[in-house]
Amino acid sequence: MSSGILFQRIALIGIGLIGSSLARVVKRDGLAGHVVACARRAETLAAAERLEIVDSTTHDPAEAAAGADLVIICTPIGSYGEVARAIAPSLSPGAIVSDVGSVKRAVLEAVTPHLPDGVHFVPGHPIAGTENTGPEAGFDTLFEGRWFLITPPPGTDEIAIERVAELWRRAGSMVARMDAAHHDHVLAITSHIPHLIAYTIVGTATDLEDQLKSEVIKYSAAGFRDFTRIAGSDPVMWRDVFLNNRDAVLEMLGRFTEDLTALQRAVRVGDGAALESLFARTRDIRRGVVAAQQHIPPRPSEEG
Amino acid sequence: MSSGILFQRIALIGIGLIGSSLARVVKRDGLAGHVVACARRAETLAAAERLEIVDSTTHDPAEAAAGADLVIICTPIGSYGEVARAIAPSLSPGAIVSDVGSVKRAVLEAVTPHLPDGVHFVPGHPIAGTENTGPEAGFDTLFEGRWFLITPPPGTDEIAIERVAELWRRAGSMVARMDAAHHDHVLAITSHIPHLIAYTIVGTATDLEDQLKSEVIKYSAAGFRDFTRIAGSDPVMWRDVFLNNRDAVLEMLGRFTEDLTALQRAVRVGDGAALESLFARTRDIRRGVVAAQQHIPPRPSEEG
Repeated sequence: MSSGILFQRIALIGIGLIGSSLARVVKRDGLAGHVVACARRAETLAAAERLEIVDSTTHDPAEAAAGADLVIICTPIGSYGEVARAIAPSLSPGAIVSDVGSVKRAVLEAVTPHLPDGVHFVPGHPIAGTENTGPEAGFDTLFEGRWFLITPPPGTDEIAIERVAELWRRAGSMVARMDAAHHDHVLAITSHIPHLIAYTIVGTATDLEDQLKSEVIKYSAAGFRDFTRIAGSDPVMWRDVFLNNRDAVLEMLGRFTEDLTALQRAVRVGDGAALESLFARTRDIRRGVVAAQQHIPPRPSEEG
Repeated sequence: MSSGILFQRIALIGIGLIGSSLARVVKRDGLAGHVVACARRAETLAAAERLEIVDSTTHDPAEAAAGADLVIICTPIGSYGEVARAIAPSLSPGAIVSDVGSVKRAVLEAVTPHLPDGVHFVPGHPIAGTENTGPEAGFDTLFEGRWFLITPPPGTDEIAIERVAELWRRAGSMVARMDAAHHDHVLAITSHIPHLIAYTIVGTATDLEDQLKSEVIKYSAAGFRDFTRIAGSDPVMWRDVFLNNRDAVLEMLGRFTEDLTALQRAVRVGDGAALESLFARTRDIRRGVVAAQQHIPPRPSEEG
């Protein structure tokens, strides 16, 4: 891998799990002359400073973006419009604005209208994460071997796209280009629907009678245990995902509930052949996921 | 921990993930004078011999049970009636029959009528497992720190119960006693429904157009990745779970689909407050699971 500075000044608007993990990579490999973190809460900025993963911090998005050749929005999607409006006046001509949001079509609609001419918007989405949040939860190997999906609108400057892609390659990611709407469709099934379902089943457990609920927690088995991990993810981030990928989520959810109803009927009538047939078919998908080497959850290996 | 032989002859009817893991523990700690494994398929028995985790093997359940002071049924639940019928004539008075099935009420109904007087039936369920199957998939630390739920019918000989409990304590498990019907209710939500849902969503993905399906596999994210692991579990074992815990599964599934419908509506109407409220509530359950130390999936640590 080549080394050296990729950007003079990177502004990270939001320094949670993803932003702080990227900051760690940039710091470790010296990929930027200066990294500034922007967050609303003083504790978050204090943590980023204490961890020594950024060069400076500020509460003001406009101040962070001033003079930056790369601004990455790492906040929940619902805040993007406000962030874009705040940074717009201080963006330099030729600056690149990117993001890490889990939904891409809504992001284009929220950000693009605010950006001045001469600023390049290169949205992207690292398919990596854990259920933990905040700057302490990040680690510099989070993106290794993971996909970074880059979804620039047609006509985006190719050099800007390549500069963002290179940053993520340095973080260890594989980069693939995708249409924003298509991204949202794929992620609805790989990520958004599973999260919605996990939240639901853990919510169903939350509503159980106290005695039963305490036993469900105590004897938590494979299945529920995994669901609780998924359902431990950041509430605001996920609220915004569902509010901003409604159509794809509802479409895939419709398919899912149809299939669940069919399976429920198979259980009710005792159709063992139908159950076994589905249960055998799904193994092939698992084999595919393992073969694609995306089956191991990312965990910190070197630092906490 | 005390050591020494607990049983003269243990017969394992079925030597898959659970049976072979228990065999490894018994062998490692010398808990039985003799361990015999019974399986239908020659490859399975050959594997058990090659792994040197049992003292002898046989295709004949009656032969395995002859002279055994403990017989543990480790086959899919659907075969229990047949197994009980086969072993009954060769069971010695005072022998203990146990099992490891994921459903407990149906097991009582399937096995009890076949057992001769003087034989003790002590059903149990180790809350441990992985998505892998067969004797090679077992490992001797599978049960460490996990619960073994023991569900003897009222009036069962206390000494027999204690002898089975002690075996599982030696395997590193914590033992709790539970009514069979209550067990089935708890496990419906902690294990059976999550498996049914994971099978469904991975099945929904299986039915996608080829192009989309290949991308779902390629870009498999947290959520779907975990679901594929669950949905990679043994099809016959799980078919039998749903056929034998129908009432509890359908009741909990009813609650789940009600809750999912409410959440679907919140997505459709854009009710961010409702989404965030649920997503925050479910974090408490996750904290409970982590506090109960049941959050880390079991993995082989010492042997393969």
